[in-house]
Amino acid sequence: MSEVGDGVRIPNPTLDLGLRTPLIPMYSEKQIIDKVRKQFGDSRAVIGIGDDAAVLDLPDGFSTVVCSDLLSENTHFRRSTHPPDSIGFKAIAVNVSDVGAMGGTPSHCLISLALPPGLEASWFDGFSEGVGTACRKFEVSLVGGDTSEAECIFVDACVIGRVRPERAVRRSGARPGDGVYVTGTIGGSALGLRLLEAGRSDDPAIGRHLYPEPRHRIGLEIADRATSMIDISDGFSTDLGHLLAESEVSARIEGSRIPLHPGSELDLALDSGEEYELIVTARELPSEIDGVPITRVGEIIESGKTHQAFFRQNTRERILDPKGWQHLGN
Amino acid sequence: MSEVGDGVRIPNPTLDLGLRTPLIPMYSEKQIIDKVRKQFGDSRAVIGIGDDAAVLDLPDGFSTVVCSDLLSENTHFRRSTHPPDSIGFKAIAVNVSDVGAMGGTPSHCLISLALPPGLEASWFDGFSEGVGTACRKFEVSLVGGDTSEAECIFVDACVIGRVRPERAVRRSGARPGDGVYVTGTIGGSALGLRLLEAGRSDDPAIGRHLYPEPRHRIGLEIADRATSMIDISDGFSTDLGHLLAESEVSARIEGSRIPLHPGSELDLALDSGEEYELIVTARELPSEIDGVPITRVGEIIESGKTHQAFFRQNTRERILDPKGWQHLGN
Repeated sequence: MSEVGDGVRIPNPTLDLGLRTPLIPMYSEKQIIDKVRKQFGDSRAVIGIGDDAAVLDLPDGFSTVVCSDLLSENTHFRRSTHPPDSIGFKAIAVNVSDVGAMGGTPSHCLISLALPPGLEASWFDGFSEGVGTACRKFEVSLVGGDTSEAECIFVDACVIGRVRPERAVRRSGARPGDGVYVTGTIGGSALGLRLLEAGRSDDPAIGRHLYPEPRHRIGLEIADRATSMIDISDGFSTDLGHLLAESEVSARIEGSRIPLHPGSELDLALDSGEEYELIVTARELPSEIDGVPITRVGEIIESGKTHQAFFRQNTRERILDPKGWQHLGN
Repeated sequence: MSEVGDGVRIPNPTLDLGLRTPLIPMYSEKQIIDKVRKQFGDSRAVIGIGDDAAVLDLPDGFSTVVCSDLLSENTHFRRSTHPPDSIGFKAIAVNVSDVGAMGGTPSHCLISLALPPGLEASWFDGFSEGVGTACRKFEVSLVGGDTSEAECIFVDACVIGRVRPERAVRRSGARPGDGVYVTGTIGGSALGLRLLEAGRSDDPAIGRHLYPEPRHRIGLEIADRATSMIDISDGFSTDLGHLLAESEVSARIEGSRIPLHPGSELDLALDSGEEYELIVTARELPSEIDGVPITRVGEIIESGKTHQAFFRQNTRERILDPKGWQHLGN
């Protein structure tokens, strides 16, 4: 459609967006689809990659859980610091985390990927490898998606899963008297990013930032005991704030109990996004599941008009302001 | 997380990406979520917008259809020519079309939206209005998604629907002796884009480009008779090529039978993408459904090693090369 497309679509394969010339140019859409079909073709789908839409037989007796999360270049990652397989891995992991935070089990995913034509083909290979690793690790089948050009890299993944109808855990069920629990440790992702940007590559915190470990299996295991649950994608302070607002309660948090990632600091940990640990409220949770510590960091209390976290550190108490990540301004 | 985020995430609300200062700055993520919840809150979901993931009760006895399609700025649209409500409308419509091309019925959707912080808030308002119009028109409920910053606008929509397991129509079922049918008329979208870029706003073809009409209701009605089906998103020549390749057959197409959009030309119509009409193969279809013409444009024939469309125009016959849209190079 070169006669009509010049103004909008980019019909010319030699198009130059001002990016450096790649050593091996990006694959065509057809090559990408062929590669993806070859790598992910044996999916658990009635009809998988390569048709207008995927067709899935989801099991009876469950509700369906769906979510999507996007990663955009220079907002969530940079080409210079983040290896492509980490972007592929993360795209799936962050959605698996969201399904897990509902008490669900992820099963299928779609990926929409926009790539600058000046990008090297090896970027796609790395990305695709990361998606494959995550799909195997989290037992999720890639069943479809879309590919297009764009001026910078965009990845949007949608994950589909199942949850027992009575087991879906919302953000809004926390009640006064519940404990506030956090899985694993926090502060590692922010620390990892800081080290990565300083040119380091030898610290476990970096892996934590690049290849996060969603806690969906723990979410599923505690779904019958949790009164509310949210995953830490924007930061403990911000995500706890969401949970309190939705539940219309307040909380008292004990600073000394915050489970810090080794080498991290309290202030960093409170506002570090992309942790993908769970904040859970419940009467009582075990102190560990599958080797992952579960720490009681405070309790839910009654709330007035405003729903706040009162944060105690040594002898001082303050309001824990949500200082984690928020997109698009203040 | 300003200490750690400077390098990757953009923690500063006054961030300037070099875009002009908006008259009314873009809403914050929280404002967007609040607005979307208010506008789309009464969705047909057990748990809708505002939690980690949406929870849906899909009806028993059906398979689930899922697809995603992305629109990226300066590839699929330009801010200067495409009104924001058209982008919102299209994001849903193109996915409804894909579900329809499987013989399915769409029911729910998710939207991931990345916006440059320098964009005016009115762009989001227009976009959101277009999404709302499409959701009402196609009876689809918005149940979730994601919002983020990016250097240019990026929209990815995922639509979920249902199909009777035995009714899902693939691209791969065309058999020699089947007729090749096209719904509606083609060539209008390319013509509309051409006129739009020439500064016109008074031609029906422009509406055709900006607010496409997916044929999912026709797809559903003929699903039991169709042997294969695909929607025209990349162009008749290209999408017919996909269908022939997947079905491992060839086709004979009669140029004089191609149903041209008023004012369009044959060459334009053959390669015009974003038509969202259906190409259907079947023994026999009615010549019209719900006022939409269904035209027999040729027939499926046996194929050798290569699967091709032989195109007859007056006394000449030629191979119909796929000249429609293909992303990412040749």
